[in-house]
Amino acid sequence: MGARLFGWGTESGDLSAAEAHALLDRVRPWLAVTEPVDPPTLSEVDLAPPRLAPAGPVSAWLRTDPLARATHTYGQGYRDLVRRLERRFAPAPDVVAVPPDENGVVATLEWADAHDAVVVPFGGGTSVVGGIEAPSDDPRPVVSLDLEGLHGVIEVDTASRVARCRAGTRGPDLEAALAPYGLTLRHFPQSFEFSTVGGWLATHAAGHYATGPTRIDDAVASLRAVTPRGILDTGRHPSWGAGPDVRALVLGSEGTLGVITETWLRVVARPTFHARAVARFADVEAGIAASRAIAQSGLRPANARLLDPVEAAVSGAGDGNEALLLLACESADHPVSGEMTRLRELAADHGAKLRDGVGRPDAPWRDAFVRAPYARDVLVRAGLLVETFETVTTWDRLDTLRHAVVDAAAAALAASGSPGGLVSWRLTHLYPDGAALYLTVLAPARARDRVGQIDEVRAGLLAVLADAAAPVTHHHAVGRVHQPAHTASSPALATALLVSAKAVLDPRGLLNPGVLVASSRPGHQPRDHVG
Amino acid sequence: MGARLFGWGTESGDLSAAEAHALLDRVRPWLAVTEPVDPPTLSEVDLAPPRLAPAGPVSAWLRTDPLARATHTYGQGYRDLVRRLERRFAPAPDVVAVPPDENGVVATLEWADAHDAVVVPFGGGTSVVGGIEAPSDDPRPVVSLDLEGLHGVIEVDTASRVARCRAGTRGPDLEAALAPYGLTLRHFPQSFEFSTVGGWLATHAAGHYATGPTRIDDAVASLRAVTPRGILDTGRHPSWGAGPDVRALVLGSEGTLGVITETWLRVVARPTFHARAVARFADVEAGIAASRAIAQSGLRPANARLLDPVEAAVSGAGDGNEALLLLACESADHPVSGEMTRLRELAADHGAKLRDGVGRPDAPWRDAFVRAPYARDVLVRAGLLVETFETVTTWDRLDTLRHAVVDAAAAALAASGSPGGLVSWRLTHLYPDGAALYLTVLAPARARDRVGQIDEVRAGLLAVLADAAAPVTHHHAVGRVHQPAHTASSPALATALLVSAKAVLDPRGLLNPGVLVASSRPGHQPRDHVG
Repeated sequence: MGARLFGWGTESGDLSAAEAHALLDRVRPWLAVTEPVDPPTLSEVDLAPPRLAPAGPVSAWLRTDPLARATHTYGQGYRDLVRRLERRFAPAPDVVAVPPDENGVVATLEWADAHDAVVVPFGGGTSVVGGIEAPSDDPRPVVSLDLEGLHGVIEVDTASRVARCRAGTRGPDLEAALAPYGLTLRHFPQSFEFSTVGGWLATHAAGHYATGPTRIDDAVASLRAVTPRGILDTGRHPSWGAGPDVRALVLGSEGTLGVITETWLRVVARPTFHARAVARFADVEAGIAASRAIAQSGLRPANARLLDPVEAAVSGAGDGNEALLLLACESADHPVSGEMTRLRELAADHGAKLRDGVGRPDAPWRDAFVRAPYARDVLVRAGLLVETFETVTTWDRLDTLRHAVVDAAAAALAASGSPGGLVSWRLTHLYPDGAALYLTVLAPARARDRVGQIDEVRAGLLAVLADAAAPVTHHHAVGRVHQPAHTASSPALATALLVSAKAVLDPRGLLNPGVLVASSRPGHQPRDHVG
Repeated sequence: MGARLFGWGTESGDLSAAEAHALLDRVRPWLAVTEPVDPPTLSEVDLAPPRLAPAGPVSAWLRTDPLARATHTYGQGYRDLVRRLERRFAPAPDVVAVPPDENGVVATLEWADAHDAVVVPFGGGTSVVGGIEAPSDDPRPVVSLDLEGLHGVIEVDTASRVARCRAGTRGPDLEAALAPYGLTLRHFPQSFEFSTVGGWLATHAAGHYATGPTRIDDAVASLRAVTPRGILDTGRHPSWGAGPDVRALVLGSEGTLGVITETWLRVVARPTFHARAVARFADVEAGIAASRAIAQSGLRPANARLLDPVEAAVSGAGDGNEALLLLACESADHPVSGEMTRLRELAADHGAKLRDGVGRPDAPWRDAFVRAPYARDVLVRAGLLVETFETVTTWDRLDTLRHAVVDAAAAALAASGSPGGLVSWRLTHLYPDGAALYLTVLAPARARDRVGQIDEVRAGLLAVLADAAAPVTHHHAVGRVHQPAHTASSPALATALLVSAKAVLDPRGLLNPGVLVASSRPGHQPRDHVG
């Protein structure tokens, strides 16, 4: 339940001492690293007394012990890691609720409302945008609502290939439940092992299957959410033609409109045909052009992502001189060698050298991808600023934006006290009309106010995105961190529509205030817990 | 501008006297037909005086002449055709506005609001669900807002393959504007020649490219709408990850939230590789099973629709004993013969006999499809009730629902005074998790109250859909005709969200009241104009 006091995932995934040592040795020629500081222990966590005292039937699943509260305080953004390492847990919720079922969710919302408390829905705890953190400017006590109790696949319609899943189900458990039917969701965000179905829906999660229906939204046949005004269940339809699709209001609503409890997800047969290749480009622009050609070919590779030379080198997949385009095809119905042949032709047409598809040519990148959050823990402990930013733009604007964000990141790092950092990028998701641009920054953090530093770096990037009319996020969500910039860049009427939807479903502003849209509750006094 | 006084499309498409004669001869062995009644002439149209007098700058594009008013009175549903033939034009709008541009749309809304008038947006006039008809229960004068003046493609981003289109652009004009770039939308609803881009967005239009991204929604990179509260422009993004997708509120809003004026549409390269085939099934259930296998294969044929034996025979494509599955593949990038081979295998696995793909094996069906509305005009003039109904359901429920709706249609026809009608069906759109089920009914109409009869038949079918939790429409929209049943079958919170969105964008209830959701304007007195 919840996250660890510090660290991605589970202890079993942590880098060993030898691996951590080797990692820092690889980084040291480029960036100054320090001796890693120790993660916090529970005895070092100092929490204010909870402002709520559980009573009544709900107390069966309400917890106020320090471990529960401390492990539901933060997500996995850089600012979260830093505050953990600094032993600052002031935003800890007063109460952690872990209801056993949907009725328990309803009862928890009623109890919170009766005590004028705020409710912050909590899935896998992997938000990197402050989506599961208590508001700093709201005087109400806070309940972290952990959906872990709502887990499992309830029902599988094998004829329609749709599975009814509870919101708290994590990726591996979902796949394990589908496997006996020969089915799979094929949705693999980097957080796959720990994030939850409900979290995916609430944040427009996108998997690393990176063309075609990569967005969880495409898999959602229906959803069901508990709101303060009752349960919203959209009904299960293969396609939506009768009026505006209200599912779209809940998808990406980040816990502000309701607590997603169930969804029917479209699943597919487990692939039996596979082909993989890695295309190497000495010319980065040619790699981008090849990516565009592939995205517009009508083929839908299961993976197609472009790593810039730095990114490729950092992940151990490249030599630092070439951009890499990772390609994979799969099918449960037919051989994919023909499709892969055409993909390789498209890459070769743009000057690629192809690494042969024997075995798993993309394995170095995949391994690095899955273990990256564990490696980041070590790097942050060793004094590095490590963070990612992402957006999406159309092909006609991609090159201008790519240069602008890379330059802005380097400039913001330097201006904030960390010159000479590494800035790398990749195209994580390819669409016929554009691509998701994903930036990683890596630099020795300044000594003081590291949270302030990342906020400065982010502000520099968000200014560039605003100039380019590019959204603040592609698949990391808006959260608390991006909310002001998101609202500033959104059409006023769009924000008015969201505020109005919230007034319908959550008229007393119970749910995740300050995430996605500014809290509208009047007369709130700020709580000083973010340094 | 507008529709004809009676008749689909343009006069040039009308069946010749000889064709009409031959059509009735083909039908006569099955159904009693009468001598076709003549369409109305303008001198036979009796309209109440307009309740609004154009003045000021807007009068440059406001019309109150009988021709303009009569040709903006009805859509193309059976009840529309019948009322035209009965010379009943009471719902005619008081004024027809044909603004030249978006500013003119803004000015028209302001003028209508100042005169407490209702505005009914009008695209191609092809609604079959009363979506462009004035409300019968609202005392306010009515302005029909024809978007014809907003036509053309403004800008094409060839790198991103996205085209900025004005809402009043009709299908052929759109394709003609894209052709010089080697691009095409590949969106072909049956109304393609006459319906408009804005109408497609407002009604979730679905093309006859019947798997994959057939729904216009998938092509919408952005949209722009004039609302009484200002202009909503969503911005152009390849994928939407920052908060709920507000585009989804406008898509399918049927003119109730705003007047769509522009959209960036995703387009594709014009296909150069084609393959077509027709699979024949003696066993209808096997045809359905093959359709499901194809929809779940991961292949995305450009066409895949199943005609039941009656439908196949009526369209001239079959012999009445076999169901037909029409298949087509296309690509601008790669040969599709391999894909077609696999589709044929999947069909053959379910017992199909394949008609060879030489030339256009689906040509008889396609020709019948395009000319069907013209043929219907003749049949309705000859005293037949001809109407279509559609819904969508998951594969697990399809067979039960199919039998239920066919039986209900036959029973409702008999109960309403027309026993022995023909009821046929097809699967117009295949999805991995289900299909759109499309019903055509054909019967000698009863002599009196033909509008009442079709309402009775519809009520019988809607009751079956409600029992099955199937939506009232897949791609014909809700309109005025389905509104009560749609609201009754929608979750209360979903309707509350729409009502709230309307309160934000159209607080005075100017736009298309009574379509999609019940008019909420208090104190309205019914106008008696629907017999």
